[in-house]
Amino acid sequence: MEDTPSATPDPATSSLIASDRVEGTKVFGRDGGKLGAVHNFVVDKRSGQVAYVVVSTGGFLGLGQAYHPLPWSAFAYDEVQGGYVVQVDRRMLDGGPSFRPDSAPVFDDAYGRRISEYYASAPAA
Amino acid sequence: MEDTPSATPDPATSSLIASDRVEGTKVFGRDGGKLGAVHNFVVDKRSGQVAYVVVSTGGFLGLGQAYHPLPWSAFAYDEVQGGYVVQVDRRMLDGGPSFRPDSAPVFDDAYGRRISEYYASAPAA
Repeated sequence: MEDTPSATPDPATSSLIASDRVEGTKVFGRDGGKLGAVHNFVVDKRSGQVAYVVVSTGGFLGLGQAYHPLPWSAFAYDEVQGGYVVQVDRRMLDGGPSFRPDSAPVFDDAYGRRISEYYASAPAA
Repeated sequence: MEDTPSATPDPATSSLIASDRVEGTKVFGRDGGKLGAVHNFVVDKRSGQVAYVVVSTGGFLGLGQAYHPLPWSAFAYDEVQGGYVVQVDRRMLDGGPSFRPDSAPVFDDAYGRRISEYYASAPAA
């Protein structure tokens, strides 16, 4: 059976989002200001659970743009703001693991631990 | 701290995959033949859990291409084949919910139930 065409997903009525549409979702810091936007999700392909969210900051036309992987556990979805809120500020983000768009790291166990440990040791909000 | 450039993720050594790289992962049916490829994941943006996988079938230059959403629970990752295996065959896929690339449905609760119920009632492999 083929579905008839219908409207595109409405984020206000569904908590589901296609992986190719997460890009650009706003990310707010603990002071309420915008930190950046979701670049992509890093998913465990066996469990289907998002492990990390890569947050993109800065960069006009890609200049000075940096990618910051944060553990999924740091993210809360805020329906009102239509984006994610993390208990992190810009300084903490800049001091943590990051990479440039043209040099993605290997997301192996060691890198995962480094991300988790960095944010686990971050001062409480 | 900025990471030095390194190799792109190696699927053989990591179970993590970026959401923008899941596209194209092969999907094999219960008879071992290739059914299609992953178009995208549909993720619960609150829990971070993949709810559905949209499998793309057919279509040369997009002609006759169809998208079939299947529940995540139907998927097992096969390291040897480097793709997902589902206990579904082509006939079952063609009889289930599907949509054309230009008419994505609303992934709301009702649509989700329709997908789950269709595959739950599928005959055992």
